[in-house]
Amino acid sequence: MNFDLSLFLTFPIAAATETAAEESTFVLAGVLLSLVAVYAASKIGGELCARINLPPVLGELVGGVIIGISALHLLVFPASGAAAGDSLIIRIMEATANLSPEAAQSVFATQSEVISLLAELGVIILLFEIGLESDLAELIRVGPQAAVVATVGVVAPFAAGTAGLIFLFHIAPIPAIFAGAALTATSIGITAKVLAEIGQLSSTEGQIIIGAAVLDDILGIIVLAVVASLSKTGEIEITNVIYLIISAAVFLVGAILLGRLISPLWVGLVNSMKTRGKLLLTALCFAFILAYIAAVIHLEAILGAFAAGLILAETDKRRELEEQVVPVADIFVPLFFVCVGAKTDLSVLNPAIPSNREGLIIALFLIGVAIVGKVITGFTLWQPGLKKLAVGVGMIPRGEVGLVFAGVGSASGALSESTNAAIIMMVIFTTFLAPPLLRVVFKEPATAVESASSPD
Amino acid sequence: MNFDLSLFLTFPIAAATETAAEESTFVLAGVLLSLVAVYAASKIGGELCARINLPPVLGELVGGVIIGISALHLLVFPASGAAAGDSLIIRIMEATANLSPEAAQSVFATQSEVISLLAELGVIILLFEIGLESDLAELIRVGPQAAVVATVGVVAPFAAGTAGLIFLFHIAPIPAIFAGAALTATSIGITAKVLAEIGQLSSTEGQIIIGAAVLDDILGIIVLAVVASLSKTGEIEITNVIYLIISAAVFLVGAILLGRLISPLWVGLVNSMKTRGKLLLTALCFAFILAYIAAVIHLEAILGAFAAGLILAETDKRRELEEQVVPVADIFVPLFFVCVGAKTDLSVLNPAIPSNREGLIIALFLIGVAIVGKVITGFTLWQPGLKKLAVGVGMIPRGEVGLVFAGVGSASGALSESTNAAIIMMVIFTTFLAPPLLRVVFKEPATAVESASSPD
Repeated sequence: MNFDLSLFLTFPIAAATETAAEESTFVLAGVLLSLVAVYAASKIGGELCARINLPPVLGELVGGVIIGISALHLLVFPASGAAAGDSLIIRIMEATANLSPEAAQSVFATQSEVISLLAELGVIILLFEIGLESDLAELIRVGPQAAVVATVGVVAPFAAGTAGLIFLFHIAPIPAIFAGAALTATSIGITAKVLAEIGQLSSTEGQIIIGAAVLDDILGIIVLAVVASLSKTGEIEITNVIYLIISAAVFLVGAILLGRLISPLWVGLVNSMKTRGKLLLTALCFAFILAYIAAVIHLEAILGAFAAGLILAETDKRRELEEQVVPVADIFVPLFFVCVGAKTDLSVLNPAIPSNREGLIIALFLIGVAIVGKVITGFTLWQPGLKKLAVGVGMIPRGEVGLVFAGVGSASGALSESTNAAIIMMVIFTTFLAPPLLRVVFKEPATAVESASSPD
Repeated sequence: MNFDLSLFLTFPIAAATETAAEESTFVLAGVLLSLVAVYAASKIGGELCARINLPPVLGELVGGVIIGISALHLLVFPASGAAAGDSLIIRIMEATANLSPEAAQSVFATQSEVISLLAELGVIILLFEIGLESDLAELIRVGPQAAVVATVGVVAPFAAGTAGLIFLFHIAPIPAIFAGAALTATSIGITAKVLAEIGQLSSTEGQIIIGAAVLDDILGIIVLAVVASLSKTGEIEITNVIYLIISAAVFLVGAILLGRLISPLWVGLVNSMKTRGKLLLTALCFAFILAYIAAVIHLEAILGAFAAGLILAETDKRRELEEQVVPVADIFVPLFFVCVGAKTDLSVLNPAIPSNREGLIIALFLIGVAIVGKVITGFTLWQPGLKKLAVGVGMIPRGEVGLVFAGVGSASGALSESTNAAIIMMVIFTTFLAPPLLRVVFKEPATAVESASSPD
């Protein structure tokens, strides 16, 4: 009984439909498989971490590394140079669904675009949720402390990193400045997610970290603009810097003032509506509009989503909206963390590659500066009784923002391969170190895992 | 004080980052604007319909028509021949975000792919939700009646339509058969959504309609395969037909039997998990895997999602899962209905085009057959006390399935322009007529609008 399965799978009905329709079926199939891979990686990683008392988000990142470019190749992206044949999901479809090698490249490209975009929507929805769970009055109250934390956390690692690379490692000023700049950014997504998981998001320390991370994101954009123009023209375009500072300030203050005017109208609108999804869809429209505005004025979309969350948190619909956002965040947010992990190329740690060996000693220096430069920010707090170490540790993860610096520096030709590898090692190390460390410094009891995962 | 805004908007920081990164920002921005347009159209349309006592889903369809190819051009797709310059969203980004005309085409293509794919996920999640709200035992009980309804609803319009076109309109057999085939399919999405809105999904009539619509979907795939091979080779590939019937039967029966074995394991797994989203993500993984299998064996992905919902509805997690699926469905499902509306090209109704005038009289005939051929199916029910008219009316909407027939027929060259236009008119008319009619025949009281939209 030699039963040939391929006879069934190569069934000619596909030939009857148009190629475009067939290709869109494959894209859908590829996206469905990718989502299954992402969700499986996030839940397996998250559950394992929860069991050994580490933050689940670390498990999602590691789960992403395992299914990504560094290991299983289930989730790879054309941006990292992967071709269709490198994707295990494409190969599964070639084997089970008779996807032709000719169509594979275009299906792979489209499917990757869709997953990347869902991951971007994931971090937008995460920041919207973080905004909803934040307290604007508390943020304003801790604003001055957060501003000092953010400023010190940009200046200290930048100055120490750049000076160290120039004087200790004799690296030219431009690449040294790039590497120094990569030390400045804080990944608000990773920090905020860990804070939410350990139930510390609304603590004073949590709100200082969130406030500082938001300011850091804006400072990071400014630093990137400065460094990029410096490496291109050799001088700083001061008008750009002023433009960015003004637009960031106008956007954040304007959004919050305007939002306070609009939010009562929104509550009235929702109360007068009758159909399903009225609360969630109108809130998401508001968040997406602010995210769009933030993106087009060269800030980041996540800042707009965060501002929208902050504004709607002021209304009496907050609790109800939070409840409805939870399942939406549950399906979108893991895409972000798993994709960050999947795009992390651990080959940079391979000692067989010469530039990695050279990079390793620079990396150790950068990691030291990255940690110390952020941890000291906690000791600038003047309000008594705060966990200074916790605030400093909360600023450590560089995440995807640091990789943007490495990417821009690398593309501009300013960075040598070994310095580039060193920056990536620093980003990986700080990103994966921060979640467990944050948990230790907040000294939270083991039972908090359950309460942080209450909604199920 | 002549303040030049474009100075700010053409800010050169974009030049510093890579083109790919910039393009992905525009794609994200375009997707965010598209989502805002879709949600606004779905809520405005839905609310207006709810107020004049029509099903909200009709408002979502009409909202889609208004923002789509037929009117505002906010949401247009390359598949319909639209270029980047035809998209109002692309033009908004060119005006507000300095999107260059060169980049616009690729941003438009990618953004359209993402929105189309989200719409496909929308109908998958809708069918998963419908499956969750259905009752497998009841479906099996009404199965024989549903099978008769489905069979009569395929045979009667096909035979009457094809014969009428050949003998009354003297159309050649192949295009007549194509048009007849386009009369057979039922849009399960539209019917199920209306049934859910009027609270009739779990009534006996509702379950007969759902069961018959699922069988109709399978019969439609078989009819399409037959007609397509007939138009290509002039003969019916009987092995294909047998393959499709066997694979559909094996899939549905196999999924349900295997599902009954797996679902207790799933409940045990979820109970042992600790992290957020455990219920929803594991359930969606299951649904997406079945959807993938259904898609690659040339059934439809929605059938897999429906089967997954049916299986999980048998567990004691049903209620909890339903609650968490509601917000997810709220954000995905409107994309499907609004996109169906947006892709509906009303220019086919323009009497200034000669083939439309020719098509109109054929369309009137097809509409008559489409309605009568489905309404009579209700009168095949033998269980006493059922609303026969309601079941027949529930089978009327052809929706996107009918358009697939028109598309395949048109691409194969078998259909003349006037016959093609007539089929599209028939699809539009039955799709938009069914929701209000269904409401009338179920004679539901006006207060049911509120209860059908309870979760907010």
